[in-house]
Amino acid sequence: MIKRVLVLGAGRSVTSLIQSLNQLAASYALEITLADQDQKLLAQKTEHLSYVSSQHLHIDDQLLLSSTIATHDVVISMLPPLMHPTIARCCIAHQKHLITASYTSKEIQDLDQQAKEAGVLLLMEAGLDPGLDHMSAMKELDDIRAKGGQIVSFRSFTGGVVAPESDDNPWHYKITWNPENIVRAGAEGARFIRNNKYKFIPYHAIFSRLDKVEIPNYGEYEAYANRDSLHYRKLYGLEQIPTLLRGTLRKSGFCEAWNVLVNLGLTSTRFFLSNMEKVSYREFLNAFLPFSPTLTVEEKVARFAKVGLDHPIIQKIAWLGLFSHQQTNIAHGCPAEILQKLLEEKWKLRADDKDMVVMQHQIMYQIDSLAHSKTISMVVKGDNAMLTSMAKTVGYPICKVVELLLTQKLTLTGVQVPTIPEIYKPVLDDISSIGVIFSVR
Amino acid sequence: MIKRVLVLGAGRSVTSLIQSLNQLAASYALEITLADQDQKLLAQKTEHLSYVSSQHLHIDDQLLLSSTIATHDVVISMLPPLMHPTIARCCIAHQKHLITASYTSKEIQDLDQQAKEAGVLLLMEAGLDPGLDHMSAMKELDDIRAKGGQIVSFRSFTGGVVAPESDDNPWHYKITWNPENIVRAGAEGARFIRNNKYKFIPYHAIFSRLDKVEIPNYGEYEAYANRDSLHYRKLYGLEQIPTLLRGTLRKSGFCEAWNVLVNLGLTSTRFFLSNMEKVSYREFLNAFLPFSPTLTVEEKVARFAKVGLDHPIIQKIAWLGLFSHQQTNIAHGCPAEILQKLLEEKWKLRADDKDMVVMQHQIMYQIDSLAHSKTISMVVKGDNAMLTSMAKTVGYPICKVVELLLTQKLTLTGVQVPTIPEIYKPVLDDISSIGVIFSVR
Repeated sequence: MIKRVLVLGAGRSVTSLIQSLNQLAASYALEITLADQDQKLLAQKTEHLSYVSSQHLHIDDQLLLSSTIATHDVVISMLPPLMHPTIARCCIAHQKHLITASYTSKEIQDLDQQAKEAGVLLLMEAGLDPGLDHMSAMKELDDIRAKGGQIVSFRSFTGGVVAPESDDNPWHYKITWNPENIVRAGAEGARFIRNNKYKFIPYHAIFSRLDKVEIPNYGEYEAYANRDSLHYRKLYGLEQIPTLLRGTLRKSGFCEAWNVLVNLGLTSTRFFLSNMEKVSYREFLNAFLPFSPTLTVEEKVARFAKVGLDHPIIQKIAWLGLFSHQQTNIAHGCPAEILQKLLEEKWKLRADDKDMVVMQHQIMYQIDSLAHSKTISMVVKGDNAMLTSMAKTVGYPICKVVELLLTQKLTLTGVQVPTIPEIYKPVLDDISSIGVIFSVR
Repeated sequence: MIKRVLVLGAGRSVTSLIQSLNQLAASYALEITLADQDQKLLAQKTEHLSYVSSQHLHIDDQLLLSSTIATHDVVISMLPPLMHPTIARCCIAHQKHLITASYTSKEIQDLDQQAKEAGVLLLMEAGLDPGLDHMSAMKELDDIRAKGGQIVSFRSFTGGVVAPESDDNPWHYKITWNPENIVRAGAEGARFIRNNKYKFIPYHAIFSRLDKVEIPNYGEYEAYANRDSLHYRKLYGLEQIPTLLRGTLRKSGFCEAWNVLVNLGLTSTRFFLSNMEKVSYREFLNAFLPFSPTLTVEEKVARFAKVGLDHPIIQKIAWLGLFSHQQTNIAHGCPAEILQKLLEEKWKLRADDKDMVVMQHQIMYQIDSLAHSKTISMVVKGDNAMLTSMAKTVGYPICKVVELLLTQKLTLTGVQVPTIPEIYKPVLDDISSIGVIFSVR
């Protein structure tokens, strides 16, 4: 019987999860423990939640980690992915299930047999992306395959953006997720397959090779290719598919401006800059531009971008303050860190701002040589800067899996991801409860 | 008294050095030992050299390394830079001098005090680049400063290319140095200072921001910026200089074509490609190009490069065989490795080919508010594919330093680089002996 649930990590994405678990606890007489090394954060996150107690725990304290896991029935880890192998081994030793929203690393995959032998479920990728993307895609793919359809193209796009009602800047973007990942997005390049041809895109070309994506009622978005789409062939049972692409969505116009910053070198981690405090953003930007005895910084950027001075690209860069004489006030760092500090100020989600997750799967398939297509779009908005759509869509599936475990509807063991009907069906059946709206075309 | 010289590593650049040391041995009754883990290479490199004996030595065999160093008076390491801290510590323990052509790492610099206490010289950067570049630059800079000149701009360019008489391909380039470094050149980006403004160039822009450099009697070259020019401010005593740039020379036209390969992503190390044997170079190249239902691979590259199909860029890429249906015959690797294999075939220095090193320092200075400038060019050709100009210009200064040590004209200790007159004067005085031709304008 599942009576005690341990949540490791009280960071950004936990707010919604812990509230959902608290509700679940009321129905099922659960006890929830939230563990973190930051006692202030613990106090803040557990306030007003009657079924949630807090536990001060430093992840390096393996003894306490082990004894804490031993006294719970299910462990949810919201800690950084690097910590998961340690936690997973501990869960196997004590025969406790583990749920995370992190990608399945090789180290975790290698624990599959041990987990099965111990009767333990290690469910990975159970959040939004990875998580709901798998679930919503697999539901459609399995449906089509059940009808005898052969899938010839699968393109899937997800983006964490700002909801229209809180969209008040020319980038149409605010930070709703790890800002470091935002600044370094695409840095690994991308690979995918199109018409049976492999395609590779290096970092500096990622933001200029875009797909247009129309989200019903929300207008036009653009998508840049994600790191490794090929990985999804095996995961989704699409080994022979001619076209498979996964991408990230941004509001149209974002990428052409971001592309200029990337191509100038402002997102680089290659250089370490020191004594930057009194350097202005204008001087910082100018360092990436060729020398000219006559042109202004604005003119040099416009020339580099091959646009006029009144172009939206220049307006976006100006709005960020990169032409300003304001000092960076950052002692040292690589260009990416200096830019990140500025973006965290400018793209900050205000307390009452609503963020939004948009997702779209575009599937083309054949039944008896007849071509069909299906486009599934998903939109969900956050309530505010704490209860973001990101936090809701990460927290909800995990909470649902806890419910499946405690009602014994889920009896799988070993390393799993939610591409299986036993998980995706119940999660998707009830997902409108967090405001997720699907539309099919 | 110096009687025994140990050379560690029998690789590419040792041929010329070991021949010069053999000549030196005849005059000074020296015994030379060449040590390497490859016995075949040892036999080949020590053939016909009466004063050179060989020693089979694996660098991981620290006991044998230590006892071998103990029985010699000077150690020359031509091994990869990562091995130098271990070797340097061993040299200090046994009170033996060490000479290398590698950059001074922090780990080596930290041994300065210990080396001084042991009365040991750790001379780093004593080859061509780094090496002769320091020496020839410092001689000019010191001369100008001695005349009361204030240096306002120092730009220095070096390139290892193919001599005109052996130049028979449209790239005007052959491989005379570590091919991996050639494929990945510029990947770290570059930084320098111009008119008191810091300038940063990311990798993908390196080969499109060029300087033109005229080498007397050898025509027009182009230079791309080297990794970190700022480092040379302290090294050359140019802390307050408004303009300082170091660059690498290529024959004009090279960079615009290489730039296309870099920007398509062919030099990337981010992806690992498998099952590549039966993939043609054409398919390999096409993987980096956007999909088109109508355009040929040639047309897509021309469109990407914004040139016509008959442009030299397209001709150069065609000459490399990247449009051909020939199979790569390489099982797996990153794009850079697949490209490198092709370049090693196409850009191979034939047995009787002559390579060439070109170097130019452009110095601007003021004396009593009057502007002056001085341009020093250096050219040296190789004899053939074994006795390359690269090997000669790396081997000669090192051999000269050995002579300075054994005649007790050099008595410095600690970590040093050859920016000091005690070294650069005697080396440069006699450098015409290896066919180096200087011209001053």
